[in-house]
Amino acid sequence: MRMVDLIAKKRDGGNLSKAEIDWMIASYVKEEIPDYQMSAFLMAVYFKGMADDEMANFAGAMLHSGEVLDLSSIPGVKIDKHSTGGVGDKISLILAPVLAALGVNIPMISGRGLGFTGGTLDKLEAIPGFNVNLTVDQFRKQVTEHHEAIISASKEVAPADRRLYALRDVTATVESIPLIAGSIMSKKISSGIDALVLDVKVGRGAFMKTQEDAEKLAKALVTIGKAHNVKTKAVLSDMNQPLGLTIGNALEVAETIATLNGRGPKDVRQLTITLAAEMLVLAGKTDSTETAASLAGDVLRDGRALRAFRQMVIDQGGDVRVIDNPQLLPRADFRTAVKAPRSGFINNIDSEALGLAAMQLGAGRAKTGDKLDPAVGLVLHKKVGTPVSEGDTLATVHSNQEQIPAVLAAVQAAFDITDAAPAPSQLIRGFVE
Amino acid sequence: MRMVDLIAKKRDGGNLSKAEIDWMIASYVKEEIPDYQMSAFLMAVYFKGMADDEMANFAGAMLHSGEVLDLSSIPGVKIDKHSTGGVGDKISLILAPVLAALGVNIPMISGRGLGFTGGTLDKLEAIPGFNVNLTVDQFRKQVTEHHEAIISASKEVAPADRRLYALRDVTATVESIPLIAGSIMSKKISSGIDALVLDVKVGRGAFMKTQEDAEKLAKALVTIGKAHNVKTKAVLSDMNQPLGLTIGNALEVAETIATLNGRGPKDVRQLTITLAAEMLVLAGKTDSTETAASLAGDVLRDGRALRAFRQMVIDQGGDVRVIDNPQLLPRADFRTAVKAPRSGFINNIDSEALGLAAMQLGAGRAKTGDKLDPAVGLVLHKKVGTPVSEGDTLATVHSNQEQIPAVLAAVQAAFDITDAAPAPSQLIRGFVE
Repeated sequence: MRMVDLIAKKRDGGNLSKAEIDWMIASYVKEEIPDYQMSAFLMAVYFKGMADDEMANFAGAMLHSGEVLDLSSIPGVKIDKHSTGGVGDKISLILAPVLAALGVNIPMISGRGLGFTGGTLDKLEAIPGFNVNLTVDQFRKQVTEHHEAIISASKEVAPADRRLYALRDVTATVESIPLIAGSIMSKKISSGIDALVLDVKVGRGAFMKTQEDAEKLAKALVTIGKAHNVKTKAVLSDMNQPLGLTIGNALEVAETIATLNGRGPKDVRQLTITLAAEMLVLAGKTDSTETAASLAGDVLRDGRALRAFRQMVIDQGGDVRVIDNPQLLPRADFRTAVKAPRSGFINNIDSEALGLAAMQLGAGRAKTGDKLDPAVGLVLHKKVGTPVSEGDTLATVHSNQEQIPAVLAAVQAAFDITDAAPAPSQLIRGFVE
Repeated sequence: MRMVDLIAKKRDGGNLSKAEIDWMIASYVKEEIPDYQMSAFLMAVYFKGMADDEMANFAGAMLHSGEVLDLSSIPGVKIDKHSTGGVGDKISLILAPVLAALGVNIPMISGRGLGFTGGTLDKLEAIPGFNVNLTVDQFRKQVTEHHEAIISASKEVAPADRRLYALRDVTATVESIPLIAGSIMSKKISSGIDALVLDVKVGRGAFMKTQEDAEKLAKALVTIGKAHNVKTKAVLSDMNQPLGLTIGNALEVAETIATLNGRGPKDVRQLTITLAAEMLVLAGKTDSTETAASLAGDVLRDGRALRAFRQMVIDQGGDVRVIDNPQLLPRADFRTAVKAPRSGFINNIDSEALGLAAMQLGAGRAKTGDKLDPAVGLVLHKKVGTPVSEGDTLATVHSNQEQIPAVLAAVQAAFDITDAAPAPSQLIRGFVE
């Protein structure tokens, strides 16, 4: 086989066979195919796409380039959730205990944040002592006993994807549905799960700006999952404003605890229950999403989800006192109110701008390896559709530096205030299965 | 400027500015832009093309990456001819003396053959002693005195093109009209000419298989030439069979001499006169191609072109005795007739297959640097449209090995014999200016 022939085949609209894709990815990982051939291939994929089976084989080849966990010793269905990336998205922290409380196994291998999006592991580490670096044996044991664990990958997952992603980033080939879908699914499937619910974000603060693109990506993700015998369903959810009222690691843990106490912002509750319902159905707990949603609502209300969260914090060595007293979470030295410069209605909140503002405070990373400050972040006082008067507080900035004029200006500018109220927006934008 | 942004711009159908293209090519030559970004860019160009000015700037940037000759000290118009590559194409060897005999300057910087196509320099070197390695001063002096010289480039012409071509070859981005046109024109314009006639080959034995593609390439070449103040015209000519009756270096020199003696195959004469006529008009010798064609025909008939050829061979140190006695050219030890396996009409002759057969005999190179045997090659006895009887000689193979069964089989298979006579084909397929 010659790579130049495979590039030409894709360039001319052909579909690569499984043998061709396996050879290509294996040779690339062994550095027998140079980056300059792979980048030409990726650009050809950008223009010509991939057929469903080709996309599934591509994800499969990347998956098998690294470690694939075997969770078969854990009895029952193993299910996970993946979000394509949002701002203020702490849903995984709430979902895991909701499902565990209902006896469903949720072995989560999560990631860290980069750029304007946060990471589940970073949020959990805002709880003093919380250990995300379990061994695979510890991971299996904890899920077997208490149905949930959230950890970092112990070995490198899908190294082919890591190299391809770095190459795509500098060759303008990131924005390709089959490549995005292959990248996500190669990593998720490697955790040995039976079922997966995807939260595909759509809107100005998401990677997919339009409903149409989000649906295409959702279809590709579901196609790949099913081809690898993972029951997969996608929920499309709105990312035209941050999720919930907090952005920043400790602040989001506090909002998680509030939600697990039956309180918390409406959008956080609604998205949690929607995703939990789909997961419960995929896990075979019930056939009806309505029943599943009411089961999820029950455990949030009656304290069982909070109890499951407490168990996970204990299991993973975290300071459990923060659950009863979130004031013990890391706290920033300074709080600064950002005021509305005019009266009107909140028409739009620029999630990406707020995510970047939080990153500048220290809540996120500009580049891999940057150290985080768990205490800092933003608390929103107004969401889209709310009327405001000039001088009302739009947000509170939690910082460990006193002088942060650029951040304050960016936060204020992220709120678009108009005279007329915006059309009401829907949080749940669709389902793909 | 960042290369990733230029890739994205082209990917999205944008056109790069002159500043962007100049920066890109200069940075690539300095190895500040890696191959993996350039190959992604080239694939984006494959899909999105280039605007006319962009293509001209691209060729210009490659042109200025190396030496550009200054021929301004030579009085009068300097004109050249370039062919996109055929089999049996010895036209340059005949054209140069035809124009020189009419007082038109033809400073030719030619190349060597690779794969199934031969090179003008290789053909000339079949004449014992012929020196293609003149200095620029010798080149200028010879053209000033005798109007013609055919040499190899002394310094590297358009090194950016050489690197880009090598990259395109392994990334399936060769077949892109703006890239092909940029590659050809960056090299031709660097020789300091005022005018250029292009022989764009079309047909099964050519790079451009269809009239439509050949016209597109011709338009691109003419556009780039004009943008660089080179008067440019393209002739489209048929390459559905080899040109003339010989393939192989000494054999083609002998055919050249026959044509300069007013004999030679009809297609060789016709294409020479057509190209010469266009060149004479571009050089301002006359306004009428009919008049120009008759001038060219005259010098072929009356010995003036042959005399000019003799002068060039003398000037460049070749053994002038071969002109009067072509038997003195290198001769192969063995001649083997290839017979018609059936009766019928020659429907098609696969030029590429015959070019490869000649290469296997030693007349051409499989890779750059391979040593050639000037004596070997093929002589055709039948051309397309000719009736044949079973057992007639189709071709004579001139070889220096006795056992060449694979070559003989390939030569026989290259002749497609059918019951019905094929539709007559036209040698000259069009003009683009």
